[in-house]
Amino acid sequence: MPDVSVLRGHIVHAPVFGQLEIKENAYLVLENGRIAGIFDALPERYHGIDVTDYGSKIIMPSFCDMHLHAPQYPMLGMGMDLPLLEWLATYTFKTEARFSDNDYARKIYRALAQALIHHGTTRVVAFASLHREATLILMEEFENVGITGYVGKVNMDRNSAPLNEDTQDSIAQTLRWLDESARFKYIKPILTPRFTPSCSNELMEALGKIANERGLYVQSHLSENTSEIAWVKELHPDCQQYWESYEKYGLFKSHTVMAHCVHSDARERAAMKERNVLVAHCPDSNVNLISGVAPVRVLLNEGVWVALGSDIAGGADLSMMRVIAHAIRSSKFKRIETKWNDDFLTVAEAFYLGTSSAARYFGANPGFAVGDDFHAIVLDDSTLTDSDRLSVRERFERSFYLCDDRHITAVYSAGRKVV
Amino acid sequence: MPDVSVLRGHIVHAPVFGQLEIKENAYLVLENGRIAGIFDALPERYHGIDVTDYGSKIIMPSFCDMHLHAPQYPMLGMGMDLPLLEWLATYTFKTEARFSDNDYARKIYRALAQALIHHGTTRVVAFASLHREATLILMEEFENVGITGYVGKVNMDRNSAPLNEDTQDSIAQTLRWLDESARFKYIKPILTPRFTPSCSNELMEALGKIANERGLYVQSHLSENTSEIAWVKELHPDCQQYWESYEKYGLFKSHTVMAHCVHSDARERAAMKERNVLVAHCPDSNVNLISGVAPVRVLLNEGVWVALGSDIAGGADLSMMRVIAHAIRSSKFKRIETKWNDDFLTVAEAFYLGTSSAARYFGANPGFAVGDDFHAIVLDDSTLTDSDRLSVRERFERSFYLCDDRHITAVYSAGRKVV
Repeated sequence: MPDVSVLRGHIVHAPVFGQLEIKENAYLVLENGRIAGIFDALPERYHGIDVTDYGSKIIMPSFCDMHLHAPQYPMLGMGMDLPLLEWLATYTFKTEARFSDNDYARKIYRALAQALIHHGTTRVVAFASLHREATLILMEEFENVGITGYVGKVNMDRNSAPLNEDTQDSIAQTLRWLDESARFKYIKPILTPRFTPSCSNELMEALGKIANERGLYVQSHLSENTSEIAWVKELHPDCQQYWESYEKYGLFKSHTVMAHCVHSDARERAAMKERNVLVAHCPDSNVNLISGVAPVRVLLNEGVWVALGSDIAGGADLSMMRVIAHAIRSSKFKRIETKWNDDFLTVAEAFYLGTSSAARYFGANPGFAVGDDFHAIVLDDSTLTDSDRLSVRERFERSFYLCDDRHITAVYSAGRKVV
Repeated sequence: MPDVSVLRGHIVHAPVFGQLEIKENAYLVLENGRIAGIFDALPERYHGIDVTDYGSKIIMPSFCDMHLHAPQYPMLGMGMDLPLLEWLATYTFKTEARFSDNDYARKIYRALAQALIHHGTTRVVAFASLHREATLILMEEFENVGITGYVGKVNMDRNSAPLNEDTQDSIAQTLRWLDESARFKYIKPILTPRFTPSCSNELMEALGKIANERGLYVQSHLSENTSEIAWVKELHPDCQQYWESYEKYGLFKSHTVMAHCVHSDARERAAMKERNVLVAHCPDSNVNLISGVAPVRVLLNEGVWVALGSDIAGGADLSMMRVIAHAIRSSKFKRIETKWNDDFLTVAEAFYLGTSSAARYFGANPGFAVGDDFHAIVLDDSTLTDSDRLSVRERFERSFYLCDDRHITAVYSAGRKVV
């Protein structure tokens, strides 16, 4: 007999891009933590099972953060007056250097894991720092609170003072970390060359070899900033475009996460589409660091796979509800920048990017799909004005502008209730 | 003998545009609710007076919201997929129509007043609806929680279905409301023609006459949206520019608050500077409604008087800390839109616009100036990561990205502790 549980409430999810499915006062049935179905009336076979009744609260998919830098959590909201490359040199690398101290790492990563799960982020693709031990601590803290996904020990052996690794040591530490990561159930390793300027050709080559031999996913950065693009061109004069500096080492492949892609042109976009690369769009980071505004509508129209990232601490908001609102605002700026040509993202569309589109990365189907692990939040907006007289759609839509962790009263991850 | 009180903590304010003055572990002395001085060591004449010790908390000026629509509070965060003129017709006017019901007005305005004061907004220039009685209720609720400033009964006698007033009745109700407003101490009336398209020439002429006879301030909207500008041009073919449709009735004068000014060109900007008109920059509203990005740096460089408004519910954030962060982000988008030409606003600059620049509207000097009424918040960021090891400047800067009403532990308005 499976372990069955039944939830009741207003259910909102996005099985199709741009479309919400709203089921009021409906039942969501789980069998062994997997979605067995959504029903207007509870089927007879489930009668007698205790119902967790969430009343007029909203049950919706939880969020996926497809790009964040865990060791930058202590500098959230700081140093926002500097452009990318200066911000890295004067702020970021110094902050990350502190993660050689395992006690500090434990303290910060425990706080981060708590913050993420209480904001309803249950799946992540995250950068740690270069430190092997601190990376394992991050994986452990994520797993302990019920976060699932991928974490990468960063590789960086040049142009990253004071953090430059020795090339051979970077490779050796990576191999050891991969072995040590086998003990985690919900958190998997992902190879993480920081970005082309900080990785020697020798290191890139070794990582590409490991990725392909072991079937590992890869995450990095792409075309975030015009100065960065020019720098890559200097470093790889043989590459016509930035993405080819990953491609030539076998790192630009299915499920590679490329953060930003603000300045990707048609050729670069086509290469991503062809290889099933995921673009992690990080709207808040892109404006804070004045990188530019990513052409999200164009990417989507062309069929490129796009999801969202907080990119803390380039982004200043850890909450994916806020990031979804940032994605909408950013798309409206893009509409202004393109003289009202590019369409903006609706709430339903941005929500899809923050949930369904990203869930595919973890092998799930869009929305609350039968057979998938249950990842969800329960939203209580009863303290907001007029919540008793608005439609569920209106309450849902405004929640991305108005709600924070206080309104998230329950969180489910991989079928388990974790908050 | 004056009533003296002494506060101690880390004091941060902006006496000069772009510059923060930070006094750590300093004393701020009030005499009869007015600032008597800031001191590194408490002068002998104040010894023996109880000190309210805020420890490592930050004491900073409270915020001024120079443009908000109080009756739109119930629709905060909703209808964000529509451009200005459709949003007004399909959403806004219907919401405002409900303020013919005084009980509803009382409930919503009480909640709004509480929300504003708990977010540290102590001075406002606000639109009510067209309803005289509900406008008085708003003034009363603001005064009751300790908010000071200006509230306007809206005038609108055309193009505003279902809210069109009769012209003569609009004038008569306005005169009666002005008389009835005399009973408030902290909240003053301000004349409020909604915007040119919604006011007949006859109504504008009458309001201009009242404004000048009684020495009243005026608030309205200007050059928010290109369709609106074209519409004004049709309605006033005699006016070369939008602002002249106010000018010709005597409504474009010192302390007139003009919300938005997104598309104001050099001639319109010069007219505002010359007449000491205040631009209420509403960054969140301008992006949500895809109006455009206001040229704030240009306005400032030219010496135009600029402060900030939440513009709820075009803006979706009531918190002026969030609006300050929106102003920074918006200025960064402007930098991108101008191909990295216009400088963005630093935290110190945007903070000045949200406090010192606006405080001048109420007769105050910039920063915590000796002799001025004390308007302040006390910020407790001890729950945020690393607050014990950061500088006061870093803690201050990140607070605009990370803090909300939970972190505002005390609020002072016009010398009184109100939270």
